[in-house]
This record gives sequence, structure tokens and C-alpha cells, in this order.
Amino acid sequence: MRQKLYSVIIAGGRGTRFWPLSRSRKPKQLLKLFGPKTLLDETAERVLSLGGSDRTLIVTVAEQLTAVRKELSALPRKNFLAEPEGKNTAPCIGLAALEVIGRDPDAVMIILPADHWVSDVPAFRRTLKAAAELAARHDRLVTIGIQPAYPETGYGYIVRGKPLTSDGTSDAYHVKRFKEKPDTKIARQLLRQGSLWNAGIFAWKASTLLALIERYQPAIHKSLEKIARAAGGKSLATPAPRLGSVIAREYKKMPSISIDHAILERAGGEGRVLTVPGQFGWSDVGSWAAVHQMSPRDTDGNAANGNWLGIDSKECLIHAPDRLVVLLGMRNAFIVDTPDALLVGDLKRSQEVRDLVDALNKRGQRSYTIDETGSRR
Amino acid sequence: MRQKLYSVIIAGGRGTRFWPLSRSRKPKQLLKLFGPKTLLDETAERVLSLGGSDRTLIVTVAEQLTAVRKELSALPRKNFLAEPEGKNTAPCIGLAALEVIGRDPDAVMIILPADHWVSDVPAFRRTLKAAAELAARHDRLVTIGIQPAYPETGYGYIVRGKPLTSDGTSDAYHVKRFKEKPDTKIARQLLRQGSLWNAGIFAWKASTLLALIERYQPAIHKSLEKIARAAGGKSLATPAPRLGSVIAREYKKMPSISIDHAILERAGGEGRVLTVPGQFGWSDVGSWAAVHQMSPRDTDGNAANGNWLGIDSKECLIHAPDRLVVLLGMRNAFIVDTPDALLVGDLKRSQEVRDLVDALNKRGQRSYTIDETGSRR
Repeated sequence: MRQKLYSVIIAGGRGTRFWPLSRSRKPKQLLKLFGPKTLLDETAERVLSLGGSDRTLIVTVAEQLTAVRKELSALPRKNFLAEPEGKNTAPCIGLAALEVIGRDPDAVMIILPADHWVSDVPAFRRTLKAAAELAARHDRLVTIGIQPAYPETGYGYIVRGKPLTSDGTSDAYHVKRFKEKPDTKIARQLLRQGSLWNAGIFAWKASTLLALIERYQPAIHKSLEKIARAAGGKSLATPAPRLGSVIAREYKKMPSISIDHAILERAGGEGRVLTVPGQFGWSDVGSWAAVHQMSPRDTDGNAANGNWLGIDSKECLIHAPDRLVVLLGMRNAFIVDTPDALLVGDLKRSQEVRDLVDALNKRGQRSYTIDETGSRR
Repeated sequence: MRQKLYSVIIAGGRGTRFWPLSRSRKPKQLLKLFGPKTLLDETAERVLSLGGSDRTLIVTVAEQLTAVRKELSALPRKNFLAEPEGKNTAPCIGLAALEVIGRDPDAVMIILPADHWVSDVPAFRRTLKAAAELAARHDRLVTIGIQPAYPETGYGYIVRGKPLTSDGTSDAYHVKRFKEKPDTKIARQLLRQGSLWNAGIFAWKASTLLALIERYQPAIHKSLEKIARAAGGKSLATPAPRLGSVIAREYKKMPSISIDHAILERAGGEGRVLTVPGQFGWSDVGSWAAVHQMSPRDTDGNAANGNWLGIDSKECLIHAPDRLVVLLGMRNAFIVDTPDALLVGDLKRSQEVRDLVDALNKRGQRSYTIDETGSRR
């Protein structure tokens, strides 16, 4: 590939689905859900070999910048961009595109969420490289499409069209359209049609994306242009005060919108999006049930992080790094133990953890949902 | 009643059924299972008005003496007897009888386990007084018989005979025999026959008991006589070194046997035992399930000690004084949280906690079963 390849990791998420481990100051990407490393760290490791540490960028929000930088201390400081506030993914990826194009007008960027799980890393890298090649050669937006394992209703789908080449030399397809979280019936239809899960992993030239932002989202493009002008060719990482205040001002103006809604769905309708199917064992790790599923389990189906003993207990998830946990006759339960709060629940209902955090906040127990756990003891 | 009344609280139990709250150095009677007070403290409060603090004695084992004394600091030091080692209840109650008879040769003593639960304290006191009156008047062993609520197989039963008076003036019965833990079929028969639960609560004159120990358990009586001789009229509480070593030596010799086996079953066969039925809401608090049953519960059947939030959770027990606990979709679970260990189990299986402590010891995790919890953090 002639063009230089940048990996852009989007690390701005807030984690309420992993309470009590996640708190507003300790979001999902900073959790160690599968072992000694955070999801962010694992994500960075997966892509580091693609562009090297110089071309691995992180976009986060201001309040997480310190923690994120600390977590990825091997990366140069100039590779951390901080949004002044979260405005969904379109402004965030636009900002990253500005930084990338400032460094190399011809560069290809790969966009990756910081908090996913991948089991087959070599296959993952091969897929990303293929997508980047395609993006460079065809000047299109390329999405990675995950081969669906079941009719999930919580994901978006990519409805694919014809193969890009009729001779079968490349495993890439035109995208017909995108379908947001379908109901079960529609999800089954989508599976039969060979549709793919939209994992939020993309590859495109920064210039391609910015041109399409100009076309479909003129307001965002205008703000990005003002930021670029204020930067005057300098990096957007650790901006000087004047540049920082321009970014803050333009962020206030920009709409909060996802890259999917803002760009991909429209570009897809005009035949500007391709998809590369990937099979590398993927999950967006959406709940404790997903953590259970993705973790190594014993013969009784239990997955544990910590010292524990089970008496006739099956299909349980234990996350308790600091304390002995004993389970007696439990089934399908998850136990998440932190210094100040303990959650015990039915794994089948772990999607409801988010509501539970709302309930705690409403009950005036916000101290349990904001702070890092360690600070209470 | 002409005779003076002594309450003797037996506080020597070891608690493995309430792990992780109970440890070998923190047995059941020192736990706060139902609120701010320990079971021992609650037991002492229930009987304090009967004989006053001067005539409320505690028998415990040496290793628990300091903790027990501290817990009942309102009682005079001379009222705490320490066994050098546990030898079941017969030697223990024999020792207490020596102390009581040394203070008042005519006294009546009431024997009470330190770790039971009683809901109707006035009714409890009325029953004890009636039993003590009876013991004083008839020179018999009097047992309190609990009106059974269901055919429990874990308790002993008192098979009652004829009423003591045929004119219905007193609610007392001759005891035909005792039946140790029956199977369910036998338990149902016992209920139909009007048998009562044996709660281990007794009343008798110290002199009556010692005479029967001499008759049925000459070896124990011989040891007790040696102890009495060495005491020479002095109290057995905080014994001088020579007396202490005699007690230790005689304890080594005495058999480990319950008062039921040693005395009551034999005396019952000879018509020397009476029973007074009691209905005062009683439990021996044998498991976490019993704690759940005896605790105040919310409309969903949950009982909690600590700060907690339940989302669609029913019939659960939460014991977590130091930490926020959140339950999501749980049924019939019990959660016991301590600084170093956490137990989550099926309430219907809380009888198995004892086995679980064995399993921990076997796994080389004895540190979690011995020490007081606080010492680990």
C-alpha cells in the first residue's frame, strides 16, 4: 500500500453497563474484564503493528485524557486527541481525520472502538489490512462486516450487495444499505440474506471522509474547517490555549450524531460504501453476560477472575479480584465485587445493569456511580 | 418462689454454619444476626430481669472468655465461668451447678443456650418462671417444650405423657421419653401425638441435678466433687492457679456428652422429668435460612442488614453492613459479605455452609475460617 496507515482508537465511551466495576470516571475501555489488561490496552496492542506507535492515535474526552494516556504510556503524547465534550462519533472521527490529513494528506485511517473483544488477532489484522487497501485503491468508505452468529437485535446490520469483483479475487462487497437494530423477525431475514453485523470498525482515506462530511454534514464540516484554520498546520493534540478554545467553541456548535447516521447511511445509498466480511471472533462486550461468554470457563461453565470456590454452582461469572468468593448452589448468576459496592444478579438480565445505575442515581446514591472505587476505603 | 433463681447462659458454641460471618474465633453467639446486638447480648437481656445481674451466670470456653466478657460488660466478672475445653453440655452444666449450689444450696437454675431467637419475650419469661416454680416445688428436671410449627427433622422431640395436675390448673406434663432427630415420617407422627421440640432450655434445682449426675454419671460426678473440694467454698470464676489446674485436669478426664444423653433421657425413663409447653416464637437459628425466616422482611420477602437495592429480587437475605449490595433478578439467594470473604448461595441450601467450611479448610484456606474478619484488611 502506497498510503500511510493510521489506526484511530475511539476511547470516549462511558460505562454504565459494567457497574459496579465501571464508574463514570472509569468507563468500560479502562476495565480489565478478561485478565490483566484493560480493553483499551488490548485494542491498542492489536493494531500497534499496523502503523507503529507513531501512527496509532487515540481520541478520548477531556475528563478521561489523563487516565487514557496513563494506560497507553508507550504512545507519544502527541497521539492523544481530547474532545472537549462527547458529541457521538461523527465530530470525533472528523476531528481525527483533520489530525491525520494534517500529518499526511494521502493517509488511510482505520477507526476502532476501544472496548471490543477479538479472539483471532492475526485474522483481525488481515481483515483490517484488506479493508485499508480497498479504501486506498477505490476511494470509498469501507466497513468491516462481522459474520453474524445469531439474529442479535441489539446490533446494526450491513445489507450487502454485489461482490466488488466478479472474478472472486477479492472478498469485498458493495453495501446496499444499513439496517439499525432490527426486531427478531427482521434480524432472521437479514441473516438469511447474508447481511453482516456492523461493528463500528471502518477504513477510509481521511480525505475521502472529509469530502463526504462536506457533502452530507456541512455544519460539521464548517466547524472542522474553523478548527483546521486555527490549528494552522499544527497538531490538534495538546493544543495551545487559543486553538483549544476554538475547538471548545466549535464542539458546542456541532450536532451530536453518529458517523453511521451522519455519513455511512447516506453514502451507502449512493454506492460509496464497501464492506469486507471478517471472521475473527468478535464481540462488542455489551454486558456481563457477554464477558461470561467470552471468558475461559471451567467444566461447570463458570468464569472467574479472582480467588473463588464453587459448591455445585454452574454457568456463573465471578469478578472479584480482592476477596474470596464462595458460591453455594448458584446457577447463571454474576457476582461483581468492588471495594464499596457488590452486584449479584441473574446473568440473563445483565442488560438491565444500566437501568440499575439510573435507579441508584435517582435514590441519591450517585457516589456509587461516579467515583473510582478505590477512593472509598 | 422461696428459692433464689439463677439464669445460666451456655455460651460455648463454635459457629461454622454462619460462615463467612462466623469464624472459629467469632462463634454464632457473638454475631449480630438480627440487628445491632449479638445473640448472646439479646439472650442475656431476655433473662436479666429474672434473677438480676448478680444471678445471671455465663459459662463459656477459655478461648472465648475475653470476647464474651467484653460483650456482657454489665455483668460482674465473678459471673463468668470458663471451661478449659469444650466437653459438650453435661460437664458444662455440672460445673455451673457447682457454682450455683456454692452460692445458694437451695437455688433453682435455668439453663439457656446463648444463641437462640425469641420473638415474644414476656411470654418467654412467663414460661421460664413457671418452669422454675415447678422445678422448685416438685424437685424434678423441667424442660421447656416448644409447640412445633412443622415436622422438623433436625430437632429432638419431647414425648409428653399425662398432665401434671388433672384439674387443668397447671400447664405442665410428665415426660414419657425423648426422641432424637427423627426422620420425616416419625416427625409427623410425633406432631400428631402432641410431642414438643426440645429447645435445650431447662430449669431445675442445682441440688436435684447434681444428685442425678451422681446417679447416672458417676465419673462426671467424681470430677465435679474434686473440683468442689479444690474450690473449698470459693467461686469457680477466675479461679486461683491451683484450682484452675484441678479444673483443667478433671476436664481432661470427663467424657464429652450432652446433658440430654447423660441425664435427661435416663431421668425421663424414671419419671423424673416434666415439661412446660412454651409458645413464644422460638428458633435455634440453625442456618442463614432461619435468619431469613426470623428477620423482618419487605413486601418482596427480602430481609436485609445493610444498604442495599433490589431490582425484581424476592425472598433474599442480605447481610452486608459495610458495603452497598445491589441484587438484580435474584430469587431465594443469600448474600453474606465480610471484609475478606463473600458468600452467595441458594437459601434452600444454607445447611451446607458447614460442609463448605470443611472444603475451605481442606483447600488450605484455613485463614478464612479461623480469624476474625477485620484482621485481614
